[in-house]
Parts: sequence; C-alpha cells; structure tokens
Amino acid sequence: MPDILHRVGINAKPDRVFAALTTIEGLRGWWVSTASGNATKGGAIDFGFCKMKVVAAEPGALVHWQCTDGPSEWVGTDIIFRLEWKLDQTFVLFKHANWKEPVEFMHHCSTKWATFLLSLMELVERGSGRPAPHDFKIHVGD
Amino acid sequence: MPDILHRVGINAKPDRVFAALTTIEGLRGWWVSTASGNATKGGAIDFGFCKMKVVAAEPGALVHWQCTDGPSEWVGTDIIFRLEWKLDQTFVLFKHANWKEPVEFMHHCSTKWATFLLSLMELVERGSGRPAPHDFKIHVGD
Repeated sequence: MPDILHRVGINAKPDRVFAALTTIEGLRGWWVSTASGNATKGGAIDFGFCKMKVVAAEPGALVHWQCTDGPSEWVGTDIIFRLEWKLDQTFVLFKHANWKEPVEFMHHCSTKWATFLLSLMELVERGSGRPAPHDFKIHVGD
Repeated sequence: MPDILHRVGINAKPDRVFAALTTIEGLRGWWVSTASGNATKGGAIDFGFCKMKVVAAEPGALVHWQCTDGPSEWVGTDIIFRLEWKLDQTFVLFKHANWKEPVEFMHHCSTKWATFLLSLMELVERGSGRPAPHDFKIHVGD
C-alpha cells in the first residue's frame, strides 16, 4: 500500500522534538492550534478534522499514531515519526502509511505534511511554528 | 515500486505553469538556478547534480522527464507533472515514480520536492521562486 514519506533534520536534541510530538502544547504549536486530548502512549488526540490513537511513544525515538476518525482515506492509516540523532541534529523520518490508493487527496496530504514538518522544525528551533489555521497555503482556497 | 506524490494549486493559467516547466529560464527560476539544455519534448536538461530526458511535453497538460544521470537512486526514475485547470487554478499533480526502495534518501527528496513545488508556485504567482542554491533548507547543512 502506498505511503507518504518525508524527512527533516532539526537543530535540537531528540527530547525536544519528542516533546513537540507528545504534548498537546507541542502539537498545538506546529500542527493544529485547537488540538486537545492526551498525546502520551495509549492516549487519544482530537485534532478537530481527525482523531488519533497514540499506539507507541518511545522517548527520543518513536511516535506512532493510528487514525481512528476523520477523512475516510485516513481512517486506519498509521502516522509514524522516527527520531534519530546524527550529524549534530535530530532527523525526523516521517511516514503516513497504509493508504488504500494513491488518490489525488494523498498527493495533497503529502505536500501538506511537508509544510507541517517544516512548521515542527520552526517551532523547535525558533519557538514558533505555523499550525493550522495559520499554516502554509498550497492551493487557492486552502 | 514506491512513488513520491505531491499536489499544489497555482493561481495562474496552465500555459504559464507549462512554460515554467518547459523553458530553461523557467526551470532556473524555481528548481536549479544553473540549469542548462533544452527543456522541450525530446530535449535533455542538465541540472548539474542530475540530467533529465524530456520524454513528453503536452502543452498545458503534462510534462514527463526520465532521469538519465545523477544519484544512483534516481537514474531510470520518472518525474511527471500533470496540469489540470479546475476551481479557478492550475493544479499540478506531481509524481517522482519508480524508486527501487523507500530508502532514507527518498524521504529527504519527498520533502525537498514539496519545497520546490512551493517555489514553482511562488515563481508563477509572484515572479520569483527559491531555486537552489537559495532553496528552503530542510536540515542542518542542507
């Protein structure tokens, strides 16, 4: 099944990136400014347009969500962030896995995820990101 | 085989996006500022770190390159831009297809392509993009 893949390298230690992925304050700072819930292992996060279950959260190493509600193409898909410290930065290897089909919406989400990972980088490196609704716009009316 | 997928919507008619994809001046404006060669159908383009053969170029609709030289993971892969006018904008459906394996470099290239498609959007909509070496940086040392 097709996957969305991305990678960014962040100028910070893995624990700071991990915090931005496993706290509601962090998630509000780079992805969705109205996020709520519990972003630690076993928790459920409500991002408004979708809901995620936190399947795994290994400090400094891995965060794995599964989509439990939201766009039909997303339900049941997995969102995985692997963190690796090398070359004096934390690399985030991102995968939004297990799409059923490479539909046009998947193309859109791939580009959108890239902009949110850049937002994560900006949040961790500089203190403020570009979470929705103040996110990078990638088409007219986005 | 795994593919990189993206989509952006550009506030301009398809012929202007097509021109940015099929002229050396256009390619220098959003992807690689030192690009040279012939970007029309049947031509060969030298981007410095890689070379592309222009397999197809259908005005306002499609541009298809095949990589003939460059990073080993890229040689033989296909880069396809489909243009579609809808919702008062030109959507670019992008695919970098036929990677052998979803290696870490593919994750990097996926994020990087997103930033270059945003650069293409900026070039066409505002007159200047962010081609290499002035491209968006996505890791320390990029």
